[in-house]
Amino acid sequence: MSPAEFLADHETNLGGHLAIRFTSHQRDCVTAEMTAQKTHLTIGGRVHGGAIMAFADTVAAYGAVLNLPSEQHGTTTIESKTSFLGAGEPGAVYAESRPLHRGRTTMVWETTIRSQSRKVIAMVWQTQMVLQPR
Amino acid sequence: MSPAEFLADHETNLGGHLAIRFTSHQRDCVTAEMTAQKTHLTIGGRVHGGAIMAFADTVAAYGAVLNLPSEQHGTTTIESKTSFLGAGEPGAVYAESRPLHRGRTTMVWETTIRSQSRKVIAMVWQTQMVLQPR
Amino acid sequence: MSPAEFLADHETNLGGHLAIRFTSHQRDCVTAEMTAQKTHLTIGGRVHGGAIMAFADTVAAYGAVLNLPSEQHGTTTIESKTSFLGAGEPGAVYAESRPLHRGRTTMVWETTIRSQSRKVIAMVWQTQMVLQPR
Amino acid sequence: MSPAEFLADHETNLGGHLAIRFTSHQRDCVTAEMTAQKTHLTIGGRVHGGAIMAFADTVAAYGAVLNLPSEQHGTTTIESKTSFLGAGEPGAVYAESRPLHRGRTTMVWETTIRSQSRKVIAMVWQTQMVLQPR
Repeated sequence: MSPAEFLADHETNLGGHLAIRFTSHQRDCVTAEMTAQKTHLTIGGRVHGGAIMAFADTVAAYGAVLNLPSEQHGTTTIESKTSFLGAGEPGAVYAESRPLHRGRTTMVWETTIRSQSRKVIAMVWQTQMVLQPR
Repeated sequence: MSPAEFLADHETNLGGHLAIRFTSHQRDCVTAEMTAQKTHLTIGGRVHGGAIMAFADTVAAYGAVLNLPSEQHGTTTIESKTSFLGAGEPGAVYAESRPLHRGRTTMVWETTIRSQSRKVIAMVWQTQMVLQPR
Repeated sequence: MSPAEFLADHETNLGGHLAIRFTSHQRDCVTAEMTAQKTHLTIGGRVHGGAIMAFADTVAAYGAVLNLPSEQHGTTTIESKTSFLGAGEPGAVYAESRPLHRGRTTMVWETTIRSQSRKVIAMVWQTQMVLQPR
Repeated sequence: MSPAEFLADHETNLGGHLAIRFTSHQRDCVTAEMTAQKTHLTIGGRVHGGAIMAFADTVAAYGAVLNLPSEQHGTTTIESKTSFLGAGEPGAVYAESRPLHRGRTTMVWETTIRSQSRKVIAMVWQTQMVLQPR
């Protein structure tokens, strides 16, 4: 998968639907933001945990794509763990994904989610499998 | 939070947006389904991991709400772990949430996600904090 | 790695040190027990979380070994998640490991830890990588 | 629980048994080391995952104890997630625990485990419940 393919797909899938916008992308750091609209919020005005997990999964997966050995390789999330650390107020939500491990067969990425006031509201750690070319 | 309040909120937030429909709700088992439309899918036709995690979070949270000591109590997800076990084809996706632990201060719920062919495509385990009345 | 090699290694490593004894071993279920002695307990008389995690890791890893395609294949734990659900009294502690997924490159195992009174005190989910012959 | 009580307990439980030695302890960072002896190793010469998880649990729990509001409060690990990132050679193993969140009812701690060559071999994230005085 090429980065361009990832982004084209993203536009039409859940990531685009949640209006996730990538703001920088390097091999060792990808950042993005989304605006927590009504559909992203729970009754208490918190950012929906599901929106946070989908956001992090998208940003870290893009990071993994940027580190694939070739465009014939692919990647899939095999597991993901989130700790919710605080409530996010409506407004912008920011993600920053960094690799903890980039191996030949797996990668581990950490994503920090911050609210508009830049308070950390969640941390996500996920394992990406590197899929060999078929 | 009452179950009715949860459901009313659900309709307008991410859960409703993903068209998650509850199909049964007992204190020890909640089931739901959603249809994996284009926005729920990735380029490879897999159900988006983010949609799966948001789905599970919603269903298990409803289970937790059904077990709160009173409608003055609340609940919030403090952490969530997902293992992705297989690709889901487009079509219906099913969730079944069951409690592994229902304590006074925390609950742990397990959600099994199946694809239309009833194959297990993900397992989600999450810890819900029981929030005391303010 | 053969099951016999695993067990021989086990005797001299942490598993043997914690006096973990396998009580049954089938490809889809491995059981074991250990006795929670002073070194396995914390000041409050709870079974030490570390002893529980080491116990589960050992039992599930043996389950994975029993499912390797050949004795030339190996396995290693790539990640593990534990939920502690209750305090364990001193005495016997029981583990039961079952596979949630047995794929060509990864397996996911679930281990239920029970105290002497057969109360569930922890659940452990871990991903095993299947290592190809070198 | 006071820090002194924690350390006295530690000496006689699994932590002492694994010869874990604290090397510094501040409220926002606790470090420790242990020597990976034969009982800490697997057949392949890797540090046993169980020893790593027990090590991290001990160090982060001590960090949590240092942050309790009073000595009448207690703490217990409610869940723990480990990612194994590389093999550790025999010799010293180092742990460094830092808080990601210190709330009134829960804390989240991150522990980095390094081998003698200072390579990161595992990361552990755990949630500690703060137990109110009885």
